[in-house]
Amino acid sequence: MAHIDVPEGLPGIRGLMAFRPETAKVLNELTEVLLRNESTLSRGERELIATYVSALNDCFFCQNAHGGIAQHYLECDMEFIDSVKKDFENTAISEKMKALLSIAASVQKGGKTVQPEQIEKAKSLGATDLELHDTVLIAAAFCMFNRYVDGLGTTAPSDRQFYINRGKQRAEEGYINFDLYK
Amino acid sequence: MAHIDVPEGLPGIRGLMAFRPETAKVLNELTEVLLRNESTLSRGERELIATYVSALNDCFFCQNAHGGIAQHYLECDMEFIDSVKKDFENTAISEKMKALLSIAASVQKGGKTVQPEQIEKAKSLGATDLELHDTVLIAAAFCMFNRYVDGLGTTAPSDRQFYINRGKQRAEEGYINFDLYK
Repeated sequence: MAHIDVPEGLPGIRGLMAFRPETAKVLNELTEVLLRNESTLSRGERELIATYVSALNDCFFCQNAHGGIAQHYLECDMEFIDSVKKDFENTAISEKMKALLSIAASVQKGGKTVQPEQIEKAKSLGATDLELHDTVLIAAAFCMFNRYVDGLGTTAPSDRQFYINRGKQRAEEGYINFDLYK
Repeated sequence: MAHIDVPEGLPGIRGLMAFRPETAKVLNELTEVLLRNESTLSRGERELIATYVSALNDCFFCQNAHGGIAQHYLECDMEFIDSVKKDFENTAISEKMKALLSIAASVQKGGKTVQPEQIEKAKSLGATDLELHDTVLIAAAFCMFNRYVDGLGTTAPSDRQFYINRGKQRAEEGYINFDLYK
């Protein structure tokens, strides 16, 4: 049971969205801009950053919700997503994505842990300033979402297949104007 | 110098806002909803939560920018703000605020560190579900803002008086529709 009185049957952040529509609106807009709006990083790559940071923060709901969406976009299986979480250096992703995930991991620890060498490496592999900006902000934003979801003690289905089944729906509907109860 | 090419002369998050207006718009709206919109927590109390979490995250820009605004609202001096940061239990704030700051400190460490006993204590001191929700989300949001500002290596004036001077202006203008360059 969550620490506050949220509607039943809405797992993770969804119960919090129903509890406080005013903040839900802005948080969903932020997610839409960062993870779906036009970018030279694909939607799958951005969902992967969100998933990876959520795994580092040990947030079950977020890592599975966004892992399911990443899996849909990337047309991969759950093992691939898990491999990125556990050992992205030895997973078949681009060298640029590895450099960006390394920066995301530093942001998760704390902003000051990002080293100029990490930035230079990503730039040398083709990362633009905008991609660097968005990687840092996506990682930072999921340090917020993860704390929000777990800090209020929300509950979430333990069956990982639940999130994979929903990934397609969320990818199609996006993060704004969707029906919380559907 | 920041890790990415942001306009000169705009300290902290302001340079990032100029670099990426699309995310700036949503982030400012989030701050407006959380720190300024109608609430049973005063604006000063909410700025104090933001300041405290930013101090825990060692983000110089955010803790001073929001400390300056808190100081304006609370009509206190810098020593009071510093006392909250260093030892809020022995600072002249309400017992309810102490309970909320304790929850904010847990959120800063990680969402799962918030204990049911902390929530119960805050409730017994009169904290409502909405106040608990907003405390957790403010703390979580500043875990984002702090990482965003420091993760991109932004610079900030070292003179703390700079932020106190600006506190009044920000309190009057709010977080949306202000002139970034003024």
